[in-house]
Amino acid sequence: MTHLPDQGPQPGVHDLGYARLDTDRLERTGDAEVVYGAGKAPAQIVELLRTLHETHPDHAVLATRLSEEAQEAVAAAHPSAVVDPVGRTAVLGTPPVLRGTVAVVSAGTSDAPVAAEAATTARVFGAEVDLITDVGVAGLHRVMGVRERLDAADCLVVVAGMEGALASVVGGLVGVPLVAVPTSVGYGASFGGVAALLAMLNSCAPGVSVVNIDNGFGAGVFAARVARRAAPQEAKDQP
Amino acid sequence: MTHLPDQGPQPGVHDLGYARLDTDRLERTGDAEVVYGAGKAPAQIVELLRTLHETHPDHAVLATRLSEEAQEAVAAAHPSAVVDPVGRTAVLGTPPVLRGTVAVVSAGTSDAPVAAEAATTARVFGAEVDLITDVGVAGLHRVMGVRERLDAADCLVVVAGMEGALASVVGGLVGVPLVAVPTSVGYGASFGGVAALLAMLNSCAPGVSVVNIDNGFGAGVFAARVARRAAPQEAKDQP
Amino acid sequence: MTHLPDQGPQPGVHDLGYARLDTDRLERTGDAEVVYGAGKAPAQIVELLRTLHETHPDHAVLATRLSEEAQEAVAAAHPSAVVDPVGRTAVLGTPPVLRGTVAVVSAGTSDAPVAAEAATTARVFGAEVDLITDVGVAGLHRVMGVRERLDAADCLVVVAGMEGALASVVGGLVGVPLVAVPTSVGYGASFGGVAALLAMLNSCAPGVSVVNIDNGFGAGVFAARVARRAAPQEAKDQP
Amino acid sequence: MTHLPDQGPQPGVHDLGYARLDTDRLERTGDAEVVYGAGKAPAQIVELLRTLHETHPDHAVLATRLSEEAQEAVAAAHPSAVVDPVGRTAVLGTPPVLRGTVAVVSAGTSDAPVAAEAATTARVFGAEVDLITDVGVAGLHRVMGVRERLDAADCLVVVAGMEGALASVVGGLVGVPLVAVPTSVGYGASFGGVAALLAMLNSCAPGVSVVNIDNGFGAGVFAARVARRAAPQEAKDQP
Amino acid sequence: MTHLPDQGPQPGVHDLGYARLDTDRLERTGDAEVVYGAGKAPAQIVELLRTLHETHPDHAVLATRLSEEAQEAVAAAHPSAVVDPVGRTAVLGTPPVLRGTVAVVSAGTSDAPVAAEAATTARVFGAEVDLITDVGVAGLHRVMGVRERLDAADCLVVVAGMEGALASVVGGLVGVPLVAVPTSVGYGASFGGVAALLAMLNSCAPGVSVVNIDNGFGAGVFAARVARRAAPQEAKDQP
Amino acid sequence: MTHLPDQGPQPGVHDLGYARLDTDRLERTGDAEVVYGAGKAPAQIVELLRTLHETHPDHAVLATRLSEEAQEAVAAAHPSAVVDPVGRTAVLGTPPVLRGTVAVVSAGTSDAPVAAEAATTARVFGAEVDLITDVGVAGLHRVMGVRERLDAADCLVVVAGMEGALASVVGGLVGVPLVAVPTSVGYGASFGGVAALLAMLNSCAPGVSVVNIDNGFGAGVFAARVARRAAPQEAKDQP
Amino acid sequence: MTHLPDQGPQPGVHDLGYARLDTDRLERTGDAEVVYGAGKAPAQIVELLRTLHETHPDHAVLATRLSEEAQEAVAAAHPSAVVDPVGRTAVLGTPPVLRGTVAVVSAGTSDAPVAAEAATTARVFGAEVDLITDVGVAGLHRVMGVRERLDAADCLVVVAGMEGALASVVGGLVGVPLVAVPTSVGYGASFGGVAALLAMLNSCAPGVSVVNIDNGFGAGVFAARVARRAAPQEAKDQP
Amino acid sequence: MTHLPDQGPQPGVHDLGYARLDTDRLERTGDAEVVYGAGKAPAQIVELLRTLHETHPDHAVLATRLSEEAQEAVAAAHPSAVVDPVGRTAVLGTPPVLRGTVAVVSAGTSDAPVAAEAATTARVFGAEVDLITDVGVAGLHRVMGVRERLDAADCLVVVAGMEGALASVVGGLVGVPLVAVPTSVGYGASFGGVAALLAMLNSCAPGVSVVNIDNGFGAGVFAARVARRAAPQEAKDQP
Repeated sequence: MTHLPDQGPQPGVHDLGYARLDTDRLERTGDAEVVYGAGKAPAQIVELLRTLHETHPDHAVLATRLSEEAQEAVAAAHPSAVVDPVGRTAVLGTPPVLRGTVAVVSAGTSDAPVAAEAATTARVFGAEVDLITDVGVAGLHRVMGVRERLDAADCLVVVAGMEGALASVVGGLVGVPLVAVPTSVGYGASFGGVAALLAMLNSCAPGVSVVNIDNGFGAGVFAARVARRAAPQEAKDQP
Repeated sequence: MTHLPDQGPQPGVHDLGYARLDTDRLERTGDAEVVYGAGKAPAQIVELLRTLHETHPDHAVLATRLSEEAQEAVAAAHPSAVVDPVGRTAVLGTPPVLRGTVAVVSAGTSDAPVAAEAATTARVFGAEVDLITDVGVAGLHRVMGVRERLDAADCLVVVAGMEGALASVVGGLVGVPLVAVPTSVGYGASFGGVAALLAMLNSCAPGVSVVNIDNGFGAGVFAARVARRAAPQEAKDQP
Repeated sequence: MTHLPDQGPQPGVHDLGYARLDTDRLERTGDAEVVYGAGKAPAQIVELLRTLHETHPDHAVLATRLSEEAQEAVAAAHPSAVVDPVGRTAVLGTPPVLRGTVAVVSAGTSDAPVAAEAATTARVFGAEVDLITDVGVAGLHRVMGVRERLDAADCLVVVAGMEGALASVVGGLVGVPLVAVPTSVGYGASFGGVAALLAMLNSCAPGVSVVNIDNGFGAGVFAARVARRAAPQEAKDQP
Repeated sequence: MTHLPDQGPQPGVHDLGYARLDTDRLERTGDAEVVYGAGKAPAQIVELLRTLHETHPDHAVLATRLSEEAQEAVAAAHPSAVVDPVGRTAVLGTPPVLRGTVAVVSAGTSDAPVAAEAATTARVFGAEVDLITDVGVAGLHRVMGVRERLDAADCLVVVAGMEGALASVVGGLVGVPLVAVPTSVGYGASFGGVAALLAMLNSCAPGVSVVNIDNGFGAGVFAARVARRAAPQEAKDQP
Repeated sequence: MTHLPDQGPQPGVHDLGYARLDTDRLERTGDAEVVYGAGKAPAQIVELLRTLHETHPDHAVLATRLSEEAQEAVAAAHPSAVVDPVGRTAVLGTPPVLRGTVAVVSAGTSDAPVAAEAATTARVFGAEVDLITDVGVAGLHRVMGVRERLDAADCLVVVAGMEGALASVVGGLVGVPLVAVPTSVGYGASFGGVAALLAMLNSCAPGVSVVNIDNGFGAGVFAARVARRAAPQEAKDQP
Repeated sequence: MTHLPDQGPQPGVHDLGYARLDTDRLERTGDAEVVYGAGKAPAQIVELLRTLHETHPDHAVLATRLSEEAQEAVAAAHPSAVVDPVGRTAVLGTPPVLRGTVAVVSAGTSDAPVAAEAATTARVFGAEVDLITDVGVAGLHRVMGVRERLDAADCLVVVAGMEGALASVVGGLVGVPLVAVPTSVGYGASFGGVAALLAMLNSCAPGVSVVNIDNGFGAGVFAARVARRAAPQEAKDQP
Repeated sequence: MTHLPDQGPQPGVHDLGYARLDTDRLERTGDAEVVYGAGKAPAQIVELLRTLHETHPDHAVLATRLSEEAQEAVAAAHPSAVVDPVGRTAVLGTPPVLRGTVAVVSAGTSDAPVAAEAATTARVFGAEVDLITDVGVAGLHRVMGVRERLDAADCLVVVAGMEGALASVVGGLVGVPLVAVPTSVGYGASFGGVAALLAMLNSCAPGVSVVNIDNGFGAGVFAARVARRAAPQEAKDQP
Repeated sequence: MTHLPDQGPQPGVHDLGYARLDTDRLERTGDAEVVYGAGKAPAQIVELLRTLHETHPDHAVLATRLSEEAQEAVAAAHPSAVVDPVGRTAVLGTPPVLRGTVAVVSAGTSDAPVAAEAATTARVFGAEVDLITDVGVAGLHRVMGVRERLDAADCLVVVAGMEGALASVVGGLVGVPLVAVPTSVGYGASFGGVAALLAMLNSCAPGVSVVNIDNGFGAGVFAARVARRAAPQEAKDQP
């Protein structure tokens, strides 16, 4: 069976056969494309990381949602890559100069993978990270005890499953821009994170925005963009 | 068109034609039947209250979900009735001796009608009530400031719409049995109270139970039963 | 990659690295924290139980939702622990003096694990338990036959899947506070317990409250708090 | 603007311009077509009833879901019609000889309109009706008191809103074929009858079938067809 | 940990420890209890079948939803049992005299297991069965070709997944009582049978009732009860 | 409060202050922009129609979803406009030469407005229309009787509410491309057209595509584009 | 247990015992029946393909949704079959003369299997295919770069998961009939393709129609029927 | 009926009887409390605005979701207030010095009210606003034409209903932090904004965060906080 002939290479696109990388994205948006590992073969992930790294040799490039097999394949093929088994990420290349601070705050032990994905993403996208874990609202003294760290950040990422109340509590304590990440932690009528998602969308605290369930990556991108704008490069370069 | 003949009066049932009252309920459960006013004509509500009052002359009887017309009709027909336009309730007859305390705690101004329904119901069902309003989690100092009143109660009714986080925050502060009432306050993805309902069902604080959206009545019944058991009649009769 | 320095230990928090225990909870709410086993490694569960036991040597501490591997690990590490394979729980330490009675009532054979979790939890939280199984409404004589046991309890936990009608039937028979637990037993349009959950939230019997699907633990905590308030410690200490 | 020419009259179809009646249905299925009044103008309903009556002069014809205006228009145009304001129906023509008995059982006062629609429909479709109202499960003695009437019927129609438990309780008491009708009575998480619908679909009592929310008409048709088959015409013709 | 003492055996209940059989059901409803095999161990199913068979030696008893292991265990323990691997059922004991006819009609090849469960159930509950398969509406000539068999039945069971249109088409062709069974056959927006369920509940053909998704058993019970009433025992006993 | 200055007019956009018309659409896609009347004031609709008409003097322009007030305003302001109160549309300007035929087929009387909107749209977008109404599947002879008209069309639009089975039945009869339009006709578990939408998405007949609930406009656009491609302009220009 | 006797072979049906093929479909609709492989045994698929091939020796016949085992079985039994492991299809027999062009456009790498199924189906049903992959809207230059190929097609199939925005973007660029296929690619609140499905149903671009989630087959059938009508056989026969 | 005595005024709370204002919020979060007008009486809104204005005389205070009556009451009572009938807002007091720029981008005419609410809120919370309307993706040249204005902003608010594709298209064009607001504009399967909400949560463009349906206020707060951090006060004070 015959196809119409392909119309040749396009500018801003690197064609690997099974995927076409958007190599123009760095120039267009300031950030390079990222390898989303779910559903891809380990060998594909290895090659995609290599291609991105070669295209953007002066930037760190990121792969997310890596299976254990993919993590091992990346570590073997790219010995300089930093692989995080908790957040299931790999980073290849020189990290950027970090500007501004993102505080990643999580409610429970089971939220750790999503918090780690957000933290790594925020660093690759150029922000410092303050990671604050296990401050669920069932023990309010834990979140009250870190109020100053929350206030010192340029952007907050709040990660919580179950009823997701942490976003509202934190959002009422400080005026820092806050991105909430609902997680699929829970059972029964949590519906795989829908309960937390709805709670965060309906937060009574003003200024809370939300990303998809378990989307630590998206929250990290967003928060880093906010944080690094808040801290101009000159200011950070000279301390 | 002919019906099969009715098989005559049943014990424990008072037949008004358009409704059959469960007059046995007081003996069976300790509490009389209640008039649910939604969808009933004002004249029917007046007659149902009168019938319940005559059947149980030594108890207070309650009507809920009364339209403005129904409230006026009840006030006109039963001058001794106590009509509450906020909670849309009417009470007829001698209030019981109150035992134990129910604290009814609400998050926002718009939750007032549901909180009032819960409070009136709890009193008619035999418990004292401490009403604590407008302590939403966006200003945590408000709920922290009433911590001792929460701790002093025998049962808590927590009323909140939007993301319903107040139930988790209160449930983490004290060990008092807590019944949460989601309200339909909110818009968009609150889905008429579903967001708050799911949040409360998934509360990370242990020991939170939930009733239907806007069901202040159900929470009031439940909480009064808990509170009056916690305070034996003898103890309360002698101060 | 560097984090901001951690601000040191917080009071009321025991940091194990992968989890931060709320050691203040016992003083704050009267009940110690509990190990929720789902998603945790057996070794973590063993250590969390040990830490809780050492923090609260005079109380029984509880772990729930234990996999078979976790049950075996706990039994091996803590020979004095009581492990229940039906309810998938483990209890370590001296049980409390039991006050008041919780009746745990279940509809069908498949509801047994949730009923067992509720029963064990209620005992660890300080109440006696009367376990009544397999009294589904398709054979009403079964539930009618235990009416006196229902009436004698201080709080009822009603466990049912499918259409969840048992909560309404029991709630209409007696005036005891009733917490309903929908289970995920069923198929098709039961939607993993949603049908039972909605039925229980809409019960026509007054005074029914509800917890999350399969949440025997939450119902047990709630019911024990109600039951032990109903039976003051003095009274129970002197038989 | 021009249409393609219509291809002329079809057999078994009576074309009124705004509607095409299925005049073949009586021969095909044994029952005539019915006028569904929702969304139709009173004058259209009057004409549709007249047309059906003229087509089937020896049968009773039925209109359902009539607004008050439509009821008045039908009563004015067809003085011999029997109009029921509770069930919002009108019947025109000679009722059939009734065979077999349908018991229509309803849970609460607010279910009366749906129960009346089912009862009238069952009679027009040829069955006797025993109407049993207000036997909700919150007072089980009420339904236990009519057990013999339930057992004597050839088919049961059980009408209930809220949690719809009546279908399971009745279905466990007797072995008569049972059609359940969920009603939109309720609020909050009843979702306009969805809670009752799901409960009925998941009934633990075997042999319960279900129709759409508030569909008294459908239940009446179904039950009449069952009942009249159970009682051969000869037997009933000779009392 | 101690339980309150059990209050001894109840009449009408056979207690096997892990399950309490409703041995009174045959007398109460005319049909014996059935073993629902899902989630039960093969040995339990074998024992439950034996107990039911011993309690009702003159009736056939049924087990449904049997895994392959359970089917083998039943065949080994009860050599006289009839095991059907398509419908995943087992029948033990003398079949009843069959009265009336149930036509079980299915749309596609994948609906066969549900159709087989319905057919076996209808026979055990006392009706003859006419099985008509693979008559989906995408080829209307197939269902038109069996119109007479449909018309000859006393009750129809229509089994279909995907869009479930077969129920409406059959319901428009004949006036026989029709029970529709949605199946979980389909993908994407069929939502595990919900699309077919909703279609059947909204059928434009009058007189269609519905059971739960994949509930061939429930449809079989219902249809058999309708069919055997339609054909009095005397008539069938004498040919 | 000051805005940044607007950057002036854009090519291909006509700015009316309250709306910016896409005047480039005709050249880009072959069809002009359309006025969607819902939520717009009658005077705005009049002006938008006039502007479109002036921009495209050689084409017919269309407005949909017109309230009665808007219909009257358009008729008064544009005497040459063709206003259809059933489909709630208005057409202004010279109709195009019609190529190819769209058959618009509807199931019930209440589906007429959506069918009319589809028919008018298809004509404005350049196709002849054959309108076939009231051929619901409860009386199959009606749809069988128009089989040849269905087969003669170049594209079919099938409009149905309730269970939407008509799409599957028609899709099984002929091989013409078929666009299905679910309507919000129905009640209870039809959920405002969702039941029909799901049924159509899951049709067992191959080659059925679907548009949004009540979206007669979208179906008309789509079908006209298919039909006019099927009938080249030359062929139609010479009869 | 005895069945009623089968009433013999029907015209237009080929009975294989476990399935009844609709052999009349080719004559009725112009396209032969297709083997839907999900849930069927490899041996059944092999036999069904053979039967279809023998019935329609002059046409290509198609099997979809083939497991790896089924693909291997088909390749072994029918060496001339073309098996595609990406789209999970097999084609047996002489391909038709292709008329008109379907452009299959997909958003991301993970959408490839659905795009491949659509492409193969469109060819078997008689249209040429232009496959355009990985043109997601996050890099608009990719889709802008293929605008002329989109415009040259007779029908478009747009395949996208996640938010499905590609359908609206393409639909706004060209006036070619467009069938959108939502895929189950995504996570969290994509709900297995529901987010993309809803987006496509609500597209602001006119003339977008939609098929079921992951239904590349249905889109391919539909698009081929549109494309081959647009290109009369004579024209194509003479190059 | 007696309440427990209130425990007197709390710091940081201003009690108006029907509402308790959080007067501490400005100090805690940098922004004053806002009057949410939905469900409040015009006189209450007037008084709440006055109280907020008196508490924070140096800030602008805001009221949202004002009915026409409330808008008139505010204009009459506070002549210096700026009332916007499109966004249904009122602002009282001195506007702050504006820092940074928020671009508010909307897809269609019907999205104007939500865009206006977002724009006014962003200004009251301290950011300049660039309002860009009617750039829906059905005419891509409109959004491409404003690419530079998008790139120049410090934060983007993208407002869209229907399928919400504008968020993905804008998010792929520039790297500015982007908050998406789904609107309830649409019909049928848009489900009051749910389709747009899900699309935005699943955006394939990285760095998109989302607020509740129609929540222009929340997006405005969030975006202003991001924008004013990006532009330090000193820099803006000296042009």
